[in-house]
Amino acid sequence: MVNIQEVNKYLYKYREEILPKYWYNIIPDLPKPLPPPMDPKDTNSRIELLQRILPKEVIKQQFTIDRFVKIPDEILEKYVVVGRPTPLFRAIGLEKFLDTPARIYFKYEGALPTGSHKVNTAIAQVYYAYSENVEGVTTETGAGQWGSAVALASSLYRLKSIVFMVKTSYDHKPARRSLIEFYGAEVVPSPSKITRFGRSLLENNPDHPGSLGIAISEAIEYALEHGYRYVMGSVIDVVLLHQTIIGLEAMRQMELIGEEPDIIVACVGGGSNFAGLAYPFIGLRNKGKRFIAVGSAEVPKFSKGEYRYDYPDTAGLLPLLKMITLGKDFVPPPIYSGGLRYHGLAPSLSLLIRERVVEAIEYREVEVYKAARIFAETQGIVPAPESAHAVKAVIDIALEARKRNEKITILFNLSGHGLLDIDNYKSMMIRYGRF
Amino acid sequence: MVNIQEVNKYLYKYREEILPKYWYNIIPDLPKPLPPPMDPKDTNSRIELLQRILPKEVIKQQFTIDRFVKIPDEILEKYVVVGRPTPLFRAIGLEKFLDTPARIYFKYEGALPTGSHKVNTAIAQVYYAYSENVEGVTTETGAGQWGSAVALASSLYRLKSIVFMVKTSYDHKPARRSLIEFYGAEVVPSPSKITRFGRSLLENNPDHPGSLGIAISEAIEYALEHGYRYVMGSVIDVVLLHQTIIGLEAMRQMELIGEEPDIIVACVGGGSNFAGLAYPFIGLRNKGKRFIAVGSAEVPKFSKGEYRYDYPDTAGLLPLLKMITLGKDFVPPPIYSGGLRYHGLAPSLSLLIRERVVEAIEYREVEVYKAARIFAETQGIVPAPESAHAVKAVIDIALEARKRNEKITILFNLSGHGLLDIDNYKSMMIRYGRF
Repeated sequence: MVNIQEVNKYLYKYREEILPKYWYNIIPDLPKPLPPPMDPKDTNSRIELLQRILPKEVIKQQFTIDRFVKIPDEILEKYVVVGRPTPLFRAIGLEKFLDTPARIYFKYEGALPTGSHKVNTAIAQVYYAYSENVEGVTTETGAGQWGSAVALASSLYRLKSIVFMVKTSYDHKPARRSLIEFYGAEVVPSPSKITRFGRSLLENNPDHPGSLGIAISEAIEYALEHGYRYVMGSVIDVVLLHQTIIGLEAMRQMELIGEEPDIIVACVGGGSNFAGLAYPFIGLRNKGKRFIAVGSAEVPKFSKGEYRYDYPDTAGLLPLLKMITLGKDFVPPPIYSGGLRYHGLAPSLSLLIRERVVEAIEYREVEVYKAARIFAETQGIVPAPESAHAVKAVIDIALEARKRNEKITILFNLSGHGLLDIDNYKSMMIRYGRF
Repeated sequence: MVNIQEVNKYLYKYREEILPKYWYNIIPDLPKPLPPPMDPKDTNSRIELLQRILPKEVIKQQFTIDRFVKIPDEILEKYVVVGRPTPLFRAIGLEKFLDTPARIYFKYEGALPTGSHKVNTAIAQVYYAYSENVEGVTTETGAGQWGSAVALASSLYRLKSIVFMVKTSYDHKPARRSLIEFYGAEVVPSPSKITRFGRSLLENNPDHPGSLGIAISEAIEYALEHGYRYVMGSVIDVVLLHQTIIGLEAMRQMELIGEEPDIIVACVGGGSNFAGLAYPFIGLRNKGKRFIAVGSAEVPKFSKGEYRYDYPDTAGLLPLLKMITLGKDFVPPPIYSGGLRYHGLAPSLSLLIRERVVEAIEYREVEVYKAARIFAETQGIVPAPESAHAVKAVIDIALEARKRNEKITILFNLSGHGLLDIDNYKSMMIRYGRF
């Protein structure tokens, strides 16, 4: 085992200054107590199920009220391996294009190997599985972003991983599928023949297209049957906790250049990249700041969702969470931001929006697409379609600042790049034109 | 115009320490005078042609014997926009896997927005075109890596760009094509209807598959006819000059962590990423160092090439260069490292290999593929198939160091990531197995 101090000695002298040693847990700092996960009134306890399939330390972190949770050296080491701390950019190309007095910074999580922030929690959860000496982990994936993060994390700890990929994505997203396989993981089209549930569905319909809910069910069943651990990509508190490394690094990076953000912006699917950047600022340094969560107008949870207990997964296998939701059976339209096509919202973020600590806005895909083009042409980076929602909000804020001649400082999370979404952008270029 | 000092003030304090203000020109430091470009003994002067289609400053830099060439602030600013300085990584995951006493560092050019080092010279050449107030630039592209770099650079300077893409790639590499379009460039399948040469080919064969030589001819014709400038992706001295920003940054980054490389490694197609990393060390700090250029055994220019005057382009439109070459009509086998499927080698690098300053080795695709898998599984980053040649060499060197228990320091250029090459890796997984 390489010692982390030894490693850091050989990295930039500033890297150690930036990389935090603790994740930040917002739970004790919320304006009201967080409504706990609940079991539905039927026979099976979902909470008990979670305790059987998640690594013990993950369960512990899910329910901890400690403000700071130590990051084990073994995780810090892998964070460094994959390129943490990620860079903080000043978007001077975009600033000039908008002719704004605002200073625009972004934390670039797309710099990570699979192109998004997802690997931050994948590494943590897989490590805790690894430390329990299990053979492997399972998970589900839709378009493949989360699956590739888990595959990568598993390869780093030399653990097996089995990724249940929604059949339609398996068939139509061959690049993501190959990426997962390249990391040595098994990709299984879901419904599959390797679980009872999958087999039962295939018996009725051999061409079943699958769904994220079915893939979750299969991943859980496989974990239970084979003593694997199950890893989760968003929504629950412990995932948000792991993502706070983004904001903690950004806070330190802003300090190093003598800046303090006035407005913090990120897109929202389940809430993990927003929480990752914003929670440390919300909990530790919120004075005079605005926090803006940006969703999709096609998945209008902010404008049309209810705040109530609902299942985080469409299959209803996980515990009920009190959250802003469009209902677990909400069928999102076929927008290209796969990560935002989610009916619910992390409980802590739901609470913060209800309590007006966090503002929430929504944009239509066509507006987001235009913002993505502007960003690519002025900054060079093709943003992930999800992250482009944050870009759109930032552009509007910066133009508003120009009107008022306000020298504000904006910080946003560019949670991923779009190089593996180019086919989606091609479709958008056709749908919306190239202007 | 944002002032570069102003920009840097707001970036990491160390960024300014790392980013060089000059490119390094190896020409005056070569062990022998470099044989100059020559015109063939027929009617048209290729050198004169170059002077008509390249920006004047590019021509000047092509023939300069100054050791250092100042990087204009306008270029430095764009370098910063796209993410320079790029990170230096220590490959601790790979080191542990190999159980080697060697310390392995890599400069990660894949961190740039289009995923490779190509944009370093694209930005420079497009800037010089821009400063001549032309309407746009033209270039050719095979698989699309160079085309996307030019499209990005052109978008940053708000200049038009027309990319002639070899017809077969245009049809079979839709992602790269869409990426180029996303940056606002025009992608034209070559042979095309917008040049005389293209039309003449299409008249004879409407389904002409195209070739890189044809695409170059069309790009040059279009530039001549429309007052555009033509930009070039590799081989010629000025391109290598621009790429030295890689090595100059790496030198400073290694200094900052108190390290000095013993062995410097990079893959070689035309030679620009190798030169980019190695030339500053060769010319300015070569004491006790080994330099290793890694080629493809399927394109055996090191083992079977001749050192003679040859055309750098298959169409024979450019001046003759004295170089190691397999002959301009060499047809490479269908290996997946598109960037290494090139018959020749930059003149300065050819000379350095002939003079035994630089060692040259070749690996077969199957070996390189295995190295790529190991790298992805231990470091997380999927290397570009080209860059994986360097990875393979580094693995062998590190294993040799283990045998001899030598605590050497290796530095290599990870010139690109492979996220846009996943289809190629899929084919390799099928061809060579997943082991």
